[in-house]
Amino acid sequence: MNIGILGGGQLGRMLALAGVPLGARFRFLEPRSPAPVDSIGQVVRAEYDDAAALERFREGLDVVSYEFENVPDASARYLAEVIEVFPPPAALEFARDRANEKRGFGRLDVPVPPWRSVDSLEDLRRGVSELGVPAVLKTRRLGYDGKGQFVLTSHDDVARAWEDLGSSPLVLEGFVDFDRELSIVGVRARDGSTAFYPLVENTHRSGVLVRTEAPAEGVSAGLQAAAEAYIGAIMESLDYVGVLALELFEVDGGLLANEVAPRVHNSGHWTQDGADTCQFENHVRALMNLPIGSTAARGYSVMLNLLGALPPLGAVAAEPLTHLHLYDKAPRPGRKIGHINVVGPDRAEVSQTAARLEALFPPESGPA
Amino acid sequence: MNIGILGGGQLGRMLALAGVPLGARFRFLEPRSPAPVDSIGQVVRAEYDDAAALERFREGLDVVSYEFENVPDASARYLAEVIEVFPPPAALEFARDRANEKRGFGRLDVPVPPWRSVDSLEDLRRGVSELGVPAVLKTRRLGYDGKGQFVLTSHDDVARAWEDLGSSPLVLEGFVDFDRELSIVGVRARDGSTAFYPLVENTHRSGVLVRTEAPAEGVSAGLQAAAEAYIGAIMESLDYVGVLALELFEVDGGLLANEVAPRVHNSGHWTQDGADTCQFENHVRALMNLPIGSTAARGYSVMLNLLGALPPLGAVAAEPLTHLHLYDKAPRPGRKIGHINVVGPDRAEVSQTAARLEALFPPESGPA
Repeated sequence: MNIGILGGGQLGRMLALAGVPLGARFRFLEPRSPAPVDSIGQVVRAEYDDAAALERFREGLDVVSYEFENVPDASARYLAEVIEVFPPPAALEFARDRANEKRGFGRLDVPVPPWRSVDSLEDLRRGVSELGVPAVLKTRRLGYDGKGQFVLTSHDDVARAWEDLGSSPLVLEGFVDFDRELSIVGVRARDGSTAFYPLVENTHRSGVLVRTEAPAEGVSAGLQAAAEAYIGAIMESLDYVGVLALELFEVDGGLLANEVAPRVHNSGHWTQDGADTCQFENHVRALMNLPIGSTAARGYSVMLNLLGALPPLGAVAAEPLTHLHLYDKAPRPGRKIGHINVVGPDRAEVSQTAARLEALFPPESGPA
Repeated sequence: MNIGILGGGQLGRMLALAGVPLGARFRFLEPRSPAPVDSIGQVVRAEYDDAAALERFREGLDVVSYEFENVPDASARYLAEVIEVFPPPAALEFARDRANEKRGFGRLDVPVPPWRSVDSLEDLRRGVSELGVPAVLKTRRLGYDGKGQFVLTSHDDVARAWEDLGSSPLVLEGFVDFDRELSIVGVRARDGSTAFYPLVENTHRSGVLVRTEAPAEGVSAGLQAAAEAYIGAIMESLDYVGVLALELFEVDGGLLANEVAPRVHNSGHWTQDGADTCQFENHVRALMNLPIGSTAARGYSVMLNLLGALPPLGAVAAEPLTHLHLYDKAPRPGRKIGHINVVGPDRAEVSQTAARLEALFPPESGPA
């Protein structure tokens, strides 16, 4: 089975590491050089909208997938005409535009925080007065890791927020006084069967994921069922194939949907060492039309992102419960260059190990 | 860290899959094409004794290791002069000649079954009368997976055995009425620290490993300690760095050494899914001068080799406790083309799953 992946970052790298043992071979379309996938697959080095490169890329492939959602629609649709592309390009479009996404959630009765579409300064003024402050103005497209966002803390911020972001279509999101941020990763096979990993708790700093705890502590069966119902409805509506992640807020024992990622997701990295089958393998299984593997957690996990600078690897590797995952990326301030999974049978011991590891992180590490 | 591996078979492939997440990059020297490492590293395609290729191979590498022991001495020694080579070439020489190996065991007080060196028909006659029948005549070098062996079941077999194998230096091994075949995998770091996986039980058919159960059932602390003492003494004597495997016979509650493999070993494949840190990662950790990772078992494991022909992969993947590891090799009778690890918390359930999987193996699978 020859699998093509649009994008050659760390997610592509980890898809290949998980898929090669299943007998899959990987080819990546990636404009950057060097890239994390350079050493573990063929790389077609070109822009995503380079028609000749798309031809070379798809030659001899059995299926195409992607590792990030900002692939040009035209490219995904072109490929989908000549080869199977999973997840379906409609999922890209669903996820890529925050207004579409929120309307989609609404159609599926997935609850969301209050929000308004903003296409003018007037829209923004009205939105702020309806939703109150604080509120977050976000670009509808191309935002990730806290980029393309402006937090309004008073009505006086309206002009500056508009100046900053007003050149793009926007959404305004009301403030959610959430108890914690959770996410769920699901996988759907070609035959429509689904499986879900347990809800995990995520910690963000400056909009960037820094820590995932899995499974999230104190999750009732009802909360897990609600999360599965929401992500299941989204996957069903898109006739989805592969792994999808849904970020959620927990508020007063209920869930509000924040956003989806139509791909393997940072908040699922713990599954590499802490679940029976990791999210990367399950995505590849879906692509290969193999049955979905068990999504059960093995003990407790904490995933720590390595941002900007590496801790001393010898000290990390000396911690018995740790599993190191580096991306072969040059360190730059704020850049995701790896992660560590800490996994063990005892939650307290896992947390203590994670705390010792965080103490090893150099001062320059963290979000930019 | 740039790591060179002599050999590009499945062991090299699995070393890379385990080492890439640690930030290592791999280059292989491999004469065959295609080879299991083609998709996951650079390959220098040449014979092991091609001096110019050895130069190209070692250029820019930080350390060299190997994935099989039949590398020409001259090549290993040449590389060892210009770059660090682990395990040390002396370990290759120790392991490669069955007479050297048995004498080495003897010097280290590691008990072995009765044996005789055989360099003439007269030696063979005397050996058979001293050790009795059945006995096994083996070439001193280049034997693996039951090749280069002749089982003598009566004194009348002497002439035919000599005719078959007499052109090579030989050893004659007395019959061992063993209770079971065990093995232990150990790892030694550059600072001399060591760690050992639990003893496992191996099942061979026609001299080829078909099944490993880990940890072996009913192993006393004393038996594990004895195995660790033996393999520890061997690693110490060779100033070994990396993973080493020792095959053993259990006889009346004691252990006799059969042979060592100075590399990652088929009987350690279960560690990929059934131990905190797998043998491949620990070998790479030793090469990178990182601390050895925990060798503790996670539950119970059965490893089944896939020989000659694949079972239906969908049915295999549908078994919840299974982990598939394919080598990207064309099926040929008897050829090792992959393995399945079955891992779970309950030994009986793991055994039952393994039995269901074996029932899926096509009739043409198995040793040639």
